[in-house]
Amino acid sequence: MTEGIAERTQRGVGRLNLYRPDFLLLVVDLMGVCVFAVEGALAAIRSNLDILGVLVISFATALGGGMIRDLMIGAIPPNSVRDWRYPATAFLGGGAVFFFYQLFQQVPLQLVITLDAAGLALCAIAGAGKAMEFGINPLLSVLMGAVTGVGGGTIRDILLNRVPGVLQSDVYAAAALAGALVVVIGLRLRVPRWMVMTSGAVVCFVLRMMAVWMHWNLPKVMVH
Amino acid sequence: MTEGIAERTQRGVGRLNLYRPDFLLLVVDLMGVCVFAVEGALAAIRSNLDILGVLVISFATALGGGMIRDLMIGAIPPNSVRDWRYPATAFLGGGAVFFFYQLFQQVPLQLVITLDAAGLALCAIAGAGKAMEFGINPLLSVLMGAVTGVGGGTIRDILLNRVPGVLQSDVYAAAALAGALVVVIGLRLRVPRWMVMTSGAVVCFVLRMMAVWMHWNLPKVMVH
Amino acid sequence: MTEGIAERTQRGVGRLNLYRPDFLLLVVDLMGVCVFAVEGALAAIRSNLDILGVLVISFATALGGGMIRDLMIGAIPPNSVRDWRYPATAFLGGGAVFFFYQLFQQVPLQLVITLDAAGLALCAIAGAGKAMEFGINPLLSVLMGAVTGVGGGTIRDILLNRVPGVLQSDVYAAAALAGALVVVIGLRLRVPRWMVMTSGAVVCFVLRMMAVWMHWNLPKVMVH
Repeated sequence: MTEGIAERTQRGVGRLNLYRPDFLLLVVDLMGVCVFAVEGALAAIRSNLDILGVLVISFATALGGGMIRDLMIGAIPPNSVRDWRYPATAFLGGGAVFFFYQLFQQVPLQLVITLDAAGLALCAIAGAGKAMEFGINPLLSVLMGAVTGVGGGTIRDILLNRVPGVLQSDVYAAAALAGALVVVIGLRLRVPRWMVMTSGAVVCFVLRMMAVWMHWNLPKVMVH
Repeated sequence: MTEGIAERTQRGVGRLNLYRPDFLLLVVDLMGVCVFAVEGALAAIRSNLDILGVLVISFATALGGGMIRDLMIGAIPPNSVRDWRYPATAFLGGGAVFFFYQLFQQVPLQLVITLDAAGLALCAIAGAGKAMEFGINPLLSVLMGAVTGVGGGTIRDILLNRVPGVLQSDVYAAAALAGALVVVIGLRLRVPRWMVMTSGAVVCFVLRMMAVWMHWNLPKVMVH
Repeated sequence: MTEGIAERTQRGVGRLNLYRPDFLLLVVDLMGVCVFAVEGALAAIRSNLDILGVLVISFATALGGGMIRDLMIGAIPPNSVRDWRYPATAFLGGGAVFFFYQLFQQVPLQLVITLDAAGLALCAIAGAGKAMEFGINPLLSVLMGAVTGVGGGTIRDILLNRVPGVLQSDVYAAAALAGALVVVIGLRLRVPRWMVMTSGAVVCFVLRMMAVWMHWNLPKVMVH
């Protein structure tokens, strides 16, 4: 019985959705959702959207990456459709920005970047970990971690009719990939889970912050 | 046996897809598909697309919202992939506009807006109702109703490289949300299904029409 | 036992994903992935993206169409998430273009168009065939073939913030539809599989090449 369930989860059959993040992971996850929702709302207000547009963009920015990942790995319905706390957090974050926009505008850019890097790190390691639990192979689990981290921002930019920033900006998706890679390697080597998750998050966060501080950029081909 | 089926539907396991809308609902649904297909085709022709482009946009506008909803709630393959009458209706609507464009251009704007509001109402209540049947929680069922109503138009605008109108325009998604909310509350209170559906549709339709007539708009943050 | 498996595949229940393309089909499929990845990378470099952006666009262009098809027909997780050879091929193709851009630029346009037509033909027939195997009805299997062929290019254009070329250009999606139609009709008439696949691919390829050579275009409505 237990063996059957374990096997099912591992092979990603997972329609019963036995995946239950523990409470700490949930809190951490919702913090990431909140940060991304706030950033989405700020972008939406600057694009002159009304309150509902702001909430839609908050929702898409905060939960879009995880939704794509869940559809891809077969965790259907996606977590954010099954658990009302995810959309509620996204809407709270977006609504707060709408009603207290003056306040949020005064948040120093440095803090926004730091929180965003933390959100990116949390999403990337959670995404990679969940993909591994659903039996996705290592290469694709790393990709799924990155998708979780950058997918929401990409959907936001598509909706606001911009070229997705993640395709252009300094080391952002690369940091998510690095963090996810650490998680996948760690889990394969059977390093304890908390240690794997912590180091993955640290790697992603530090890489991203250093890239911002030191103006790192990935190489480009010069097109004449 | 019967209990097993009911339970499965309710928990959204639903791979067997026991969801079968009755005949009246099907007709009403296909009318909504047709209205949206016509609108999509008009936008595509104005964007100078060829006949196949027009049919693609008709298809995406008419069926995109329902497809996203079905993927999200776990009704896979989506209804419009399983039942050929949905794409056939979308293509018929789009093709009719292509071949009789002169005629369709003469349809008064007032009629287009009214039919569109009716289509929105039908999609929103059908979407919310289906999400509830698949065991999605109330908050998310309301959202799924709105997604069904506005998803297709959003995909159309992304494909035509515009900022989705639904993010900017007057009370549109809000009307869909209101209709879906009525449906979800009604179904929870075990009000008879036909009464719930009718009042949801009326609320959505009336809200949308009043918003157009009275130039209602949702509040925005003034960005200096 | 065997009967049960066959039936399950046919009805598209398919969570166990018994679908295993044989080796020849795999090689052919990966060649198509590689061609599309190269084209995606060329477009990304011309849009001034960095190396990661180039790889993301390669991945999306090469595998996006098949992913959408797999989500739609219920083959979840999609093939390209389950089998690491698909993303690996896409990344190899994209990476090669990045590091040897000078070389790839000298490839004559005629060759690029020919290879692209071949890739389109392979994707369209493989997509239509897979949809039929999952028990999708004929009309929608034809559409799924076309989605497989043109979906990736459409996602690429959305990410690069353009109107998808497939909606505007000469007979491209139409060729994919024609090839998929041949496959679906052939499979329904129980013509041997290799004959069906070959004729579908030839029809798509020849149509596309003739459209390019003879500047065919689909009709448009003149908007005054």
